Amino acid sequence: MSSATAAATSAPTANAANALKASKAPKKGKLQVSLKTPKGTKDWADSDMVIREAIFSTLSGLFKKHGGVTIDTPVFELREILAGKYGEDSKLIYNLEDQGGELCSLRYDLTVPFARYVAMNNIQSIKRYHIAKVYRRDQPAMTKGRMREFYQCDFDVAGTFESMVPDSECLSILVEGLTSLGIKDFKIKLNHRKILDGIFQIAGVKDEDVRKISSAVDKLDKSPWEAVKKEMTEEKGQSEETADKIGEYVKLNGSLKEIHAVLSADANITSNEKAKQGLDDIATLMKYTEAFDIDSFISFDLSLARGLDYYTGLIYEVVTSASAPPENASELKKKAKSAEDASEFVGVGSIAAGGRYDNLVNMFSEASGKKSTQIPCVGISFGVERIFSLIKQRINSSTTIKPTATQVFVMAFGGGKDWTGYLPERMKVTKQLWDAGIEAEYVYKAKANPRKQFDAAEKAGCHIAVILGKEEYLEGKLRVKRLGQEFADDDGELVSAADIVPIVQEKLSQIHEDGLNEVTRLIKGL
Amino acid sequence: MSSATAAATSAPTANAANALKASKAPKKGKLQVSLKTPKGTKDWADSDMVIREAIFSTLSGLFKKHGGVTIDTPVFELREILAGKYGEDSKLIYNLEDQGGELCSLRYDLTVPFARYVAMNNIQSIKRYHIAKVYRRDQPAMTKGRMREFYQCDFDVAGTFESMVPDSECLSILVEGLTSLGIKDFKIKLNHRKILDGIFQIAGVKDEDVRKISSAVDKLDKSPWEAVKKEMTEEKGQSEETADKIGEYVKLNGSLKEIHAVLSADANITSNEKAKQGLDDIATLMKYTEAFDIDSFISFDLSLARGLDYYTGLIYEVVTSASAPPENASELKKKAKSAEDASEFVGVGSIAAGGRYDNLVNMFSEASGKKSTQIPCVGISFGVERIFSLIKQRINSSTTIKPTATQVFVMAFGGGKDWTGYLPERMKVTKQLWDAGIEAEYVYKAKANPRKQFDAAEKAGCHIAVILGKEEYLEGKLRVKRLGQEFADDDGELVSAADIVPIVQEKLSQIHEDGLNEVTRLIKGL
Repeated sequence: MSSATAAATSAPTANAANALKASKAPKKGKLQVSLKTPKGTKDWADSDMVIREAIFSTLSGLFKKHGGVTIDTPVFELREILAGKYGEDSKLIYNLEDQGGELCSLRYDLTVPFARYVAMNNIQSIKRYHIAKVYRRDQPAMTKGRMREFYQCDFDVAGTFESMVPDSECLSILVEGLTSLGIKDFKIKLNHRKILDGIFQIAGVKDEDVRKISSAVDKLDKSPWEAVKKEMTEEKGQSEETADKIGEYVKLNGSLKEIHAVLSADANITSNEKAKQGLDDIATLMKYTEAFDIDSFISFDLSLARGLDYYTGLIYEVVTSASAPPENASELKKKAKSAEDASEFVGVGSIAAGGRYDNLVNMFSEASGKKSTQIPCVGISFGVERIFSLIKQRINSSTTIKPTATQVFVMAFGGGKDWTGYLPERMKVTKQLWDAGIEAEYVYKAKANPRKQFDAAEKAGCHIAVILGKEEYLEGKLRVKRLGQEFADDDGELVSAADIVPIVQEKLSQIHEDGLNEVTRLIKGL
Repeated sequence: MSSATAAATSAPTANAANALKASKAPKKGKLQVSLKTPKGTKDWADSDMVIREAIFSTLSGLFKKHGGVTIDTPVFELREILAGKYGEDSKLIYNLEDQGGELCSLRYDLTVPFARYVAMNNIQSIKRYHIAKVYRRDQPAMTKGRMREFYQCDFDVAGTFESMVPDSECLSILVEGLTSLGIKDFKIKLNHRKILDGIFQIAGVKDEDVRKISSAVDKLDKSPWEAVKKEMTEEKGQSEETADKIGEYVKLNGSLKEIHAVLSADANITSNEKAKQGLDDIATLMKYTEAFDIDSFISFDLSLARGLDYYTGLIYEVVTSASAPPENASELKKKAKSAEDASEFVGVGSIAAGGRYDNLVNMFSEASGKKSTQIPCVGISFGVERIFSLIKQRINSSTTIKPTATQVFVMAFGGGKDWTGYLPERMKVTKQLWDAGIEAEYVYKAKANPRKQFDAAEKAGCHIAVILGKEEYLEGKLRVKRLGQEFADDDGELVSAADIVPIVQEKLSQIHEDGLNEVTRLIKGL
């Protein structure tokens, strides 16, 4: 007790309060620690980890299929590299403390580090993929996969190529990726920054107002037109007329073919240089999306604006039915005003997104004093945690996913006064299996009864038991037995200890001959 | 030019200096940016990335073979979680800036987050592996794989088990892991904290001085005994006699059997309770290292102390000939006094390390107000970047490692006025291959001559070309051709377009039938 408490003895009320404080305070001389991860972050383990790794392996396989090479950049960048790239979202960047030396920040996405890498190494063309964590000090919605630390899976193509060719491949990768993850009810919302810029010009928005009006339009997926119009006129200084003109266009959405036809018949659009460029791109794109047979997934949606500053051409975003917030979101939000977690009143949001950014690499080249070189880029990013939350919903909660890879459990059965438990002997046999590349375990006990060993084998999800019988082992024999309910009455077969590796290999290949494993089936939604 | 420059016109010298400054300064209105990664970090790409990924996959395969499950914890932890765990090295921890909310720091290793995870989730036993980046504000030596951001590959066993059983498995994993990475000339230096503590007691070191004397002893791999003795007596207040007594013991090293015999014959050791406990552990360990057949890799070395505070039992560290600094290190260090990078005057250091830490989980349980529960742990950590630097040295510089996985290149040959270049057609064929899981590319150009397409195929390291001939394609035919010098004169075969997928699959399976790929061979040192 501190002297402050002693001094308070004459004032019973204060004393009681102090006593209460003391009971909550850490014990004397002990450090009090909160056993938790920082806000918006979590530990991944068990079957969640297995599912997430399967998503990574599906996507990295996909990226490799398209000729991608992978790179890895540091988790933090010099602060100046990230400055001025993210518009209003820059406030969400995590900074490292100034402990002497350079000022650094955690990366906010993988795109800006990629552009820095391309500029720094004077790379003329590359298809790269990168699966890594990014950091945003946003309000988390953990069960919806919206976190402060989360993975992005990015594929980007840098280099000067035929118009819309890498763009259409990125769209095909989106479709291939999501389909291979068992997601079927998705829609790629697609727009073109130049068409949007043209519309703003047509409506009379000044050049310097374009970004802020663009960010207002971007809210149309969450807010009704009236609210967005109000933001444009009352907060962002546009005339009623300008807002209405924008409204006419941004309400348009449909297939590439439909909206292309509507815009092509609009003299305002075709006579606006920027809009016309964008429209020509769309016409080219349509040839390629048809070749890739992905038209049915695309919705040309003039309300899509995307917040980031660096996009210059095609932009796209993938949504599913789970993307939108619940209908009574604002009501739920009011109720949970001081909520640490926004899961209740937000949707999953977009599950993948991307676009073309032709100036970002050059921005770095010029700012660093290098020769100005235009390296156009286009890319996509899969939001793994959000996709994970969809797959989790789909997986039946009774499905058990085995987090270990263990195939074989090595046991010893015996008894009597001289029974040692054969621990070093079990180690020797297990080591032989390991050396042959076979996943194997044994219990970490000198003596264990058969029941305990079978339980451990079952817990590890093993298929085969290799048993050292007290007498059999001395005769150079091991017993090999299939595990599982249906083999309960099967005593297995006695084999020569010298042949144990090939015999186990043969049995395992029979067990796994059916091909696709359980996790792959689950991920693919089969 | 600023007004300061204008004011300086009367002073020509100052003016010249200003002009000089201006020429180095960023252009007006432009942001000046250094195109680099932060100190001690680097980008990974191309064949380096392929090698590093192969190391990861070798090690994660190994950990799975031993029944490990994987977890992923956040890159940053609450600062209080890391506090008081790393002794003198705590100053190397990176802090996140206080931007409101919790105070966080980047993880310094994977062990403390693991112990936090075990305590937080009341886990009674787990074998977990974790491959992830950790952060230390240390002086980097980039070419030696000593970096500020680097990967650790950890395997740890938590839970109450038979003495030395998980410990010996960790040692076996060290041997299996390094051997499978083609590293042969390594030595596991091994010691026991309790033996060391016993020796300090015998020599008359006070309990409160043990950690600092321990950290002096730990320098014996880099400094001669005289320097360490001086540190103990002059800086750390030990008597000449105490230091000499310690010196007698810490000079001992040899096989487990040899040193165990020496210590067992020493009445000071056997009558000291702590040392005796340690020695009994070593006797038990010897049974298991023999079963795993790894004795020849182990050197029982009483000078090994390891700096971290949390070890309580067995400790070990793997060194190779490249681990030690060059002989003239101190001379080189003087020359490069203000060096940003220490590569010239340091060695690779230890390439793997670990030990037993029986109190760390409980430290978290108690500090968080949970019921006190002892969850003993033991683990190992592979230093991937350091291992990488050894593998790089081994790999012949003329060896080319292909960074892409591309197998097939889809081309179109044609000409004449009406020649379109078959771009959408190439896309269609490529999409068929992708859908069948085959890695395929084509050039992103409407029309490309055969030479350019062959060059691109060669650059991607493709094995097969699928060729759309102008007329042949119209007849429903595709040409399939093997690529490479030895097939230069082979025109390939004309096949039905409908059969392209099975035909390509068949050819690829022939090509890859020899098993081990080039990278695996390189990694394994074959």
